[in-house]
Amino acid sequence: MNNELIIFDTTLRDGEQSPGASMTRDEKLRIARQLERMRVNVIEAGFAAASNGDFESVRSIAETIKTSTVCSLARANENDIRRAGEAIAPAVSGRIHTFIATSPIHMEKKLRMSPDQVVEQAVKAIGWAKEYTGDIEFSAEDAGRSELDFLCRIFEAVIRAGATTINVPDTVGYNLPQQFAHTIDQLIERVPGADKVVWSVHCHNDLGLAVANSLAAVQAGARQVECTINGLGERAGNAALEEIVMTVRTRRDIFDCDTRIDTTQIVPASKLVSGITGFPVQPNKAIVGANAFSHESGIHQDGVLKHRETYEIMRAEDVGWGANKLVLGKHSGRNAFRSRLEELGIAIASEAHLNTAFARFKELADKKHEIFDEDLQALMSDEAVTPAVEHFRLLSSCFHSETGETPRAKLTLSVGGQEAKAESEGSGPVDAAFKAIEQVAASGTELLLYSVNAITTGTDAQGEVTVRLARNGKVVNGQGADTDIVVASAKAYLNALNKLHSNVDKLNPQGRGV
Amino acid sequence: MNNELIIFDTTLRDGEQSPGASMTRDEKLRIARQLERMRVNVIEAGFAAASNGDFESVRSIAETIKTSTVCSLARANENDIRRAGEAIAPAVSGRIHTFIATSPIHMEKKLRMSPDQVVEQAVKAIGWAKEYTGDIEFSAEDAGRSELDFLCRIFEAVIRAGATTINVPDTVGYNLPQQFAHTIDQLIERVPGADKVVWSVHCHNDLGLAVANSLAAVQAGARQVECTINGLGERAGNAALEEIVMTVRTRRDIFDCDTRIDTTQIVPASKLVSGITGFPVQPNKAIVGANAFSHESGIHQDGVLKHRETYEIMRAEDVGWGANKLVLGKHSGRNAFRSRLEELGIAIASEAHLNTAFARFKELADKKHEIFDEDLQALMSDEAVTPAVEHFRLLSSCFHSETGETPRAKLTLSVGGQEAKAESEGSGPVDAAFKAIEQVAASGTELLLYSVNAITTGTDAQGEVTVRLARNGKVVNGQGADTDIVVASAKAYLNALNKLHSNVDKLNPQGRGV
Repeated sequence: MNNELIIFDTTLRDGEQSPGASMTRDEKLRIARQLERMRVNVIEAGFAAASNGDFESVRSIAETIKTSTVCSLARANENDIRRAGEAIAPAVSGRIHTFIATSPIHMEKKLRMSPDQVVEQAVKAIGWAKEYTGDIEFSAEDAGRSELDFLCRIFEAVIRAGATTINVPDTVGYNLPQQFAHTIDQLIERVPGADKVVWSVHCHNDLGLAVANSLAAVQAGARQVECTINGLGERAGNAALEEIVMTVRTRRDIFDCDTRIDTTQIVPASKLVSGITGFPVQPNKAIVGANAFSHESGIHQDGVLKHRETYEIMRAEDVGWGANKLVLGKHSGRNAFRSRLEELGIAIASEAHLNTAFARFKELADKKHEIFDEDLQALMSDEAVTPAVEHFRLLSSCFHSETGETPRAKLTLSVGGQEAKAESEGSGPVDAAFKAIEQVAASGTELLLYSVNAITTGTDAQGEVTVRLARNGKVVNGQGADTDIVVASAKAYLNALNKLHSNVDKLNPQGRGV
Repeated sequence: MNNELIIFDTTLRDGEQSPGASMTRDEKLRIARQLERMRVNVIEAGFAAASNGDFESVRSIAETIKTSTVCSLARANENDIRRAGEAIAPAVSGRIHTFIATSPIHMEKKLRMSPDQVVEQAVKAIGWAKEYTGDIEFSAEDAGRSELDFLCRIFEAVIRAGATTINVPDTVGYNLPQQFAHTIDQLIERVPGADKVVWSVHCHNDLGLAVANSLAAVQAGARQVECTINGLGERAGNAALEEIVMTVRTRRDIFDCDTRIDTTQIVPASKLVSGITGFPVQPNKAIVGANAFSHESGIHQDGVLKHRETYEIMRAEDVGWGANKLVLGKHSGRNAFRSRLEELGIAIASEAHLNTAFARFKELADKKHEIFDEDLQALMSDEAVTPAVEHFRLLSSCFHSETGETPRAKLTLSVGGQEAKAESEGSGPVDAAFKAIEQVAASGTELLLYSVNAITTGTDAQGEVTVRLARNGKVVNGQGADTDIVVASAKAYLNALNKLHSNVDKLNPQGRGV
């Protein structure tokens, strides 16, 4: 049996389907580059047929990524598959991932197709996909609740038609490890041609068992795991990439396979995804939570210091927890700034881009003594937010709040290049700022989420604010960073409005699940 | 075999050992009451011998809780066990939980004892415990890395000595489900007297497998699971209570046991623990994450609406996700306020307490149109923060920030009853407020964490700020809620200082692990 476990990351597809986690093309590109740096085998970049925005995202990633396979999801119909094929065309290595539901309840209630029709459609889908690539993955949606005999039948048919990876999803997260391993074991044993394909699993975490189910499947012979950074994904999410990778590596005594992942890129990837989506990582999250390695917390731990192996089964530095390196300050020059960005893997689009970014860096250094890597990442994330479509921009602001008075905000905005002034009261300065912006923007949006993270510690920490706005079922996240939390909030709100304004069309996420 | 699965909650002991999660006695009492309401069988209330503060917390909980067993942890030495015995004395049903390490590495490097000495000490410990209660639990620390023969030997000895529950912890979270189930299976088969005791497991989540390992053990015959709300606990935490309970209940086709838990209390418990510790719950956390039931997110989901069971294996309302009920407003009276608090299970200490709380409620209602349950909880949490030791108090504040100027804060504080004024600049208004407070307090603390949650949605949402301060290895969380985020921040900082000032002594968490 092959001893490489293929890591298929679906942060950009299933992860992005989480309510509130939608990302812009540029954000997806940044994550894709980090996944490539981490040496993920396959990056599921999106669902090309879902919208023009999704198509463009998959295509950009296919153009950019060189050492990972780039994949697009596609329902088992001709249009979806042709869109996927066109989107992945520029890739060095491209994959089409097509799926159809196979559980009685899904076939009857959602597809309204007979089992025979479902098999026929799946085989046709493989045929269309073959016109674009030889790397074809087939998924049986809701396999976890499908009949084993029917799975054998459809898998045999798609393998004969040319599928090279067979994926078994537990779409609703209902399986237990033993049971799921048994399914995989039976499939590999019974399906003719099973030895010619890679068996894959895609587990959801509704009962908290996505990782355990995936690992049980690997012990039963699966050699691809579909997973996401931080376990992001619909509902309770997918199997967490970091837990899969580190369990297999830590327990080489049990697993007869390993991944090619550069584990030191795990924590940077986690922080990047958390920052872009505004989804916090809980401190007690395995591997990537702030407390996962307790000696990192600054709390003195006798036992650990005496004998590391007393409480430690992994080393924090192996997953990318590093010292929070002090890199730059007020007196750092352009070259130091540029080379640190390069070390952090942050792309600089042009000299003009570098100049703007450097000016912002100097501004920040005036307010904050020590500039950490996290500060640079926030700064550049702020900077990278599609300046081309910056319809709304904050020119200046004034906030005043005092006990016994109603908090007030006065803002000067640039709106499509025109200066506009606004002033409002509010229940707090942030509320006042948002109301002032709405006087000008009249966006008709609903505020779904407001969250703040201190990016670095210390009292002069920068705050990074995420604002999630919804309008007509479309949801965007805006980010803003500043040492002044109220200013960061106003920036985040404007960033979200800019994303809505740039009019990224997007289908309702429903009906594209695995 | 008994078909009740005993739920042993250790949020107040192992959970509280997480760096940054330490709680005051009052906070522990509030959580204990919620655990009792949820019908947890055993509440591990703390580690009585760790400090006077811990002793008092365990004792208060033992005095208060009536329908759950109250337990204290104790190392296997006479002093620890006597302290535990005294602390649980007032309980209707009290348990002593004693432990000693049994893995070669722990016996040699940490205990510096021979295996014979370890067995002898364990048996002695049971003897001391018997002077206080017949309900005695014994844990073999690091059992996951201990030799099976030695485990059999020590368990046989403690069962003969009178232990009634035998706990098998995977202290470092190194096990895989199959392997751990095999250990439990072997122990139950081989240990003489195994049928007279309850077998228990305590799994850590370093590889993301705490829940799966616990459940595998239940399938092998364990009938007690030690777990915590939100999976709180050292490093990557413990098995999450909500995932254990809901998997067993959802998969009654697989498990031949069930718990007595009132699952509708799960989400309120999760919110309470998250609020008190300042540890956020990530949106994709199973059961208790905001996205766990995606149709709750406000995003229209065709599939779910059409056929609920297409994507749903549990119902959101069964775990306590309810409508965010609009309860009170500006015109609500004292009686409505009091009765809503009672429905929420928030205790009112006295008429004076109710009066203060009601005054704050009216103040809030002036700023915020709709007062939700979450607002009341925040308000009361603010209120419940040991007013007796409110050394520092915010009397009034004034904040001003403007583009091109340095943000300024002017505060009037009450310090031990004396009025004090302070004024400072800062990198933002929050920084300025903290610096102004420090001009007066000169606390010498380090800021470890600053986090903000919007408690309810909408632009006039209240912000709840958590500030974590450290001084000489002692860590406290302060909370503050206000519609003005800067004011909430100042309150949170003062709350943390008050907790430090009240001088809750506490041992270093190290050396009290299971």
